[in-house]
Amino acid sequence: VSSAKGEFALIDRIRRRAGSSSSQVATGIGDDMAWLKLAEGNVLVSCDLLLDGVHFETGRHDPSMIGRKAVACSLSDIAAMAAKPVGAVVSVALPTCWSIEQAEQLHHGAIEIGEAHGCPIVGGDTTSWDRGLAINITAMATPDGIGPILRSAARVGDDILVTGRLGGSRLGRHLNFEPRISEARDLAASGGIHAMIDISDGISSDLAHICFESGLGAVLERSALENVISDAARQMAAKDGRSPLEHALHDGEDFELLMATDVELLPTLQATRNVPDCGLHRLGQFRSETGIEIRESDGRLSKVEPRGWRHFQ
Amino acid sequence: VSSAKGEFALIDRIRRRAGSSSSQVATGIGDDMAWLKLAEGNVLVSCDLLLDGVHFETGRHDPSMIGRKAVACSLSDIAAMAAKPVGAVVSVALPTCWSIEQAEQLHHGAIEIGEAHGCPIVGGDTTSWDRGLAINITAMATPDGIGPILRSAARVGDDILVTGRLGGSRLGRHLNFEPRISEARDLAASGGIHAMIDISDGISSDLAHICFESGLGAVLERSALENVISDAARQMAAKDGRSPLEHALHDGEDFELLMATDVELLPTLQATRNVPDCGLHRLGQFRSETGIEIRESDGRLSKVEPRGWRHFQ
Repeated sequence: VSSAKGEFALIDRIRRRAGSSSSQVATGIGDDMAWLKLAEGNVLVSCDLLLDGVHFETGRHDPSMIGRKAVACSLSDIAAMAAKPVGAVVSVALPTCWSIEQAEQLHHGAIEIGEAHGCPIVGGDTTSWDRGLAINITAMATPDGIGPILRSAARVGDDILVTGRLGGSRLGRHLNFEPRISEARDLAASGGIHAMIDISDGISSDLAHICFESGLGAVLERSALENVISDAARQMAAKDGRSPLEHALHDGEDFELLMATDVELLPTLQATRNVPDCGLHRLGQFRSETGIEIRESDGRLSKVEPRGWRHFQ
Repeated sequence: VSSAKGEFALIDRIRRRAGSSSSQVATGIGDDMAWLKLAEGNVLVSCDLLLDGVHFETGRHDPSMIGRKAVACSLSDIAAMAAKPVGAVVSVALPTCWSIEQAEQLHHGAIEIGEAHGCPIVGGDTTSWDRGLAINITAMATPDGIGPILRSAARVGDDILVTGRLGGSRLGRHLNFEPRISEARDLAASGGIHAMIDISDGISSDLAHICFESGLGAVLERSALENVISDAARQMAAKDGRSPLEHALHDGEDFELLMATDVELLPTLQATRNVPDCGLHRLGQFRSETGIEIRESDGRLSKVEPRGWRHFQ
């Protein structure tokens, strides 16, 4: 794909594959900009840049899985706002040594996961260079009657809830996770969710983000944390000597939802459509005093430092 | 910026610098997605990924000029639709050897050119790796009562018009050009512009894009082309032995506007506000027969092959 002709042919093939039937896409790939026709003027936008050796490894991950992960990460941002996907644009810096087929597989992976969540690929930019693969996704969404749920509206006394289980995603989940869009929509629609984020950097960092934006602190219960440690976190801990809890707190790329909710809402939310499959657990409570601490079973408090951990660095 | 703490501090500083007073930005940097409140549901989106060694060279270009160029390229896409900027998101892959100051300068360059054209930076993603600098801009715009002008609506017999002069942008213009947003808005508002593109790959390629999308061909007049050759194209030709015309046709990154217009509209459009400063020239005509040819002064026709040319590769 180092020739202009090769790039043109590639884009033409991607364009035919990505063709969307969405009534919201007036003009997709093939012009200077994509043209979306939305029912509302509220538009949400996020971008995620994924890099070889940081978020994936071209040496051992399929191009289609890399393309899938890139779009899934952006869909997870949309879930974090409880929003509804509209479309995404894909920018790729291809290594010059890649074949057209590899580039096409990358885009197919991106297109497929997008389609599965109602998020067509509506535009892009493809270039090649002699460095590593880089892929940026910019996703657009609308509130469509719900939210958006921000990071900044957690309240003192709110419960800290999380979907699924945490840690060890490097063993596979970071590539094949399903973004929690339908769960987020259902949870937010039932009311009482004040703030939300998706867990990309690890719960220690992502909880800190909600705390920072809301001007609060938080206390996590040790016994509750034990309940959300994933099997993968335990597997990794058995090998590297770090504790399963450390993996659950700091690994990142769980792409689960972390939220601040009205107290005593847990049973209602646990019964919400789509949620029983992934599970919903209470981890603790927001407080006015800043900083994040863990309360041990004997009542002692110990500080948690946010530690964003990068998988392949 | 290799530590999570460093990135957090950087983002905090960028956030304070980027803070926008635009009433369209409900939530900017600091949440999972930016939240825009637009007066209409028509939204235009484009993305541009700029790479070290392809679109700029970190060894000799200032970080602020690189950030400026990245956003200016996206603003040029907005100009090509005759649209009005709303905001942009910036994703950056920083080389691990860069200092926080360099990263900040990059963002300041991006923020400043955005502000100059009413396009605040509303979000981003910053990561570091041990490869080259990569920067992706996704820009959003609205038609706001004009257009959008697509590539696909040129008609047989339409004039081919271009703003400014072409070729040799590598000598400096590719970095410091001013995107033609106001010119595009004024031209489109006066009516009679059927199709438009900005010249990023070179007129040979970008005219081919309009032809392809509109199902047409084109004839360029040799004498008219001579009139739009830039001084920089002549300077480069004097050094490398290629002709000034070749530079004007294939160099790319002129970021001028190329359009298909109603015939006999040239004098009216030339007098349009903002246009006299940059100049507007007629280069030829669209035809039904596909392919692009140049008509020499003696009437002979010669084929032009699209040749996307990358500056630093």
